[in-house]
Amino acid sequence: MPELRKEPIVGIWVIISTERGKRPSDFERVVPKKKAVFCPFCPGNEDKTPPSILVYRNNMIPYSNSNWTLRVVPNKFPALRIEGELIREGEGVYDKMTGIGAHEVIIESPVHEATFSNMHPKALEDVFWSYRDRIMDLKKDRRLKYCLIFKNHGEAAGASLEHTHSQLIALPIVPIAVSEELAGSEGYYKYKERCIYCDIIRQELNEKIRVISENRHFLAIAPYASRSPFETWILPKRHMALYENTEVAEMESLASIFSDIFVRIDAVLENPPYNFMLHTSPFYENTEPYYHWHFEIVPKLTKLAGFEWGSGFFINPTPPEDAAQYMREVRI
Amino acid sequence: MPELRKEPIVGIWVIISTERGKRPSDFERVVPKKKAVFCPFCPGNEDKTPPSILVYRNNMIPYSNSNWTLRVVPNKFPALRIEGELIREGEGVYDKMTGIGAHEVIIESPVHEATFSNMHPKALEDVFWSYRDRIMDLKKDRRLKYCLIFKNHGEAAGASLEHTHSQLIALPIVPIAVSEELAGSEGYYKYKERCIYCDIIRQELNEKIRVISENRHFLAIAPYASRSPFETWILPKRHMALYENTEVAEMESLASIFSDIFVRIDAVLENPPYNFMLHTSPFYENTEPYYHWHFEIVPKLTKLAGFEWGSGFFINPTPPEDAAQYMREVRI
Repeated sequence: MPELRKEPIVGIWVIISTERGKRPSDFERVVPKKKAVFCPFCPGNEDKTPPSILVYRNNMIPYSNSNWTLRVVPNKFPALRIEGELIREGEGVYDKMTGIGAHEVIIESPVHEATFSNMHPKALEDVFWSYRDRIMDLKKDRRLKYCLIFKNHGEAAGASLEHTHSQLIALPIVPIAVSEELAGSEGYYKYKERCIYCDIIRQELNEKIRVISENRHFLAIAPYASRSPFETWILPKRHMALYENTEVAEMESLASIFSDIFVRIDAVLENPPYNFMLHTSPFYENTEPYYHWHFEIVPKLTKLAGFEWGSGFFINPTPPEDAAQYMREVRI
Repeated sequence: MPELRKEPIVGIWVIISTERGKRPSDFERVVPKKKAVFCPFCPGNEDKTPPSILVYRNNMIPYSNSNWTLRVVPNKFPALRIEGELIREGEGVYDKMTGIGAHEVIIESPVHEATFSNMHPKALEDVFWSYRDRIMDLKKDRRLKYCLIFKNHGEAAGASLEHTHSQLIALPIVPIAVSEELAGSEGYYKYKERCIYCDIIRQELNEKIRVISENRHFLAIAPYASRSPFETWILPKRHMALYENTEVAEMESLASIFSDIFVRIDAVLENPPYNFMLHTSPFYENTEPYYHWHFEIVPKLTKLAGFEWGSGFFINPTPPEDAAQYMREVRI
């Protein structure tokens, strides 16, 4: 059974995979260029992944096992396990709990070469619906407190398979970065009686210098204190603490702005590796007055060095105003 | 003038280098293998760096400009500037201040091929004395609040030059990771009236399962909740909040345990890239009752993916107990 352990000073929780323990020789010394000779995510290879948790199909096409448009499957090498009892205990000065949770893979398209920039917005919309479906389902498990949804694209950004996919990790704790965001936005709300994200949206729409793209329901900006060059946030204009409360028309807008942003990112930065993550509220916490869900996209352009790791203090060589301008003005 | 900007929700400060602004085409698309054809840090090339701030020499060798054993120079491309006034101001919902600070390079040895594993412990001792000398000097500047000292070794860990060096960034703010450590250890102190690091040292010395190495004044452990495989902390056994209070005999012990640890790291992991960072107290804050300075060493073995970046929640595939055992038992 893997363990969740809390760093006792700052409070960061870590999953310790006691069973899959890597040895020194397990770590790669050189980075080989990946060539997908066999892809377990391609249609026809459904038996090479654990059985599906969720499948979307196209009703216009005759049914067959391989005729899917999107699949969610458990991660074959999960960092957490869904079975078992959630036990917390101490070890002297330290605290731990059992590594209960879910670790799933969202295979976003049957097409191996699909990317967020070349997928049809309608197909992207399905990706965003699948996130919602999984959150709604996992929320029923009262041992779990948070569902992290993220995407690693490209080897340098940590993707181990090139076939387009996102990941989901459901946890019995709230990750520290989320807690900090919640605490920060709650503090602001107590002081101002306004949502800080709503204030940011208002100011950005007014100043227009960090706005990258906008549609009826969403806004994409280069955040004021971008930690990384070309960091991009996508926020719903309507105040909403929970991603799962997004409505049908909004989902369409979300897919549309994502499509636009990734066409721009690929045009400006020539198909860079990137990560994105959904920041939404923990399960069953009333964060509605002050929290505001959003996506954070981070192209992987610089190496994070010791400085950033150890300090939480970042050096960003590209002002967000410049990044936003490049993104706005690129020919697409 | 570069700007310091605070991420308004979590409170992370970022340096925005408005002058050296990178363009999309400035980012490398492929990682070329670096060949040092010319090294500005090698003896004889002193005029290729800004003038020295601090020089150590060997008195046994006749004086010449190139006869140094260690040099500290300003970074040629500093992220912060030492000249100017510290001005704080608001921009709507956002806050910023001028990018005042120091950015220096510690050239640890005249030998291009020197590493922490092949340098003589006496030469390493000089490195640790130079850290102290620079802290004592920068502390006199009342605009500054913190001095970050760190080392990036290897291209994958962010080192842009291969000649052995550390870096120093002195800041007008306390980095968030440091504030969080201070808040955490202060909270523990208020509750228990003990230093949490002292408690950790006691428990680790008692259990012995995560101890890697130990000498008279220092302890090296794989921390209980290591965020990364083979993460290593080096702590003084004596309670001390400030690095600069380290005494002569302790400096000798510190160099000796660093030498031992890096011989082990290189033996176990075959000369991996790594980062380390000194965690010490901010200037002129009375943290003496509860804080305890230490070094954190992180070999760069895994790619940090979107998951870790966005959540502050890490997956570590190597239990620290295993890492410590590999490190203890390796033949050196």
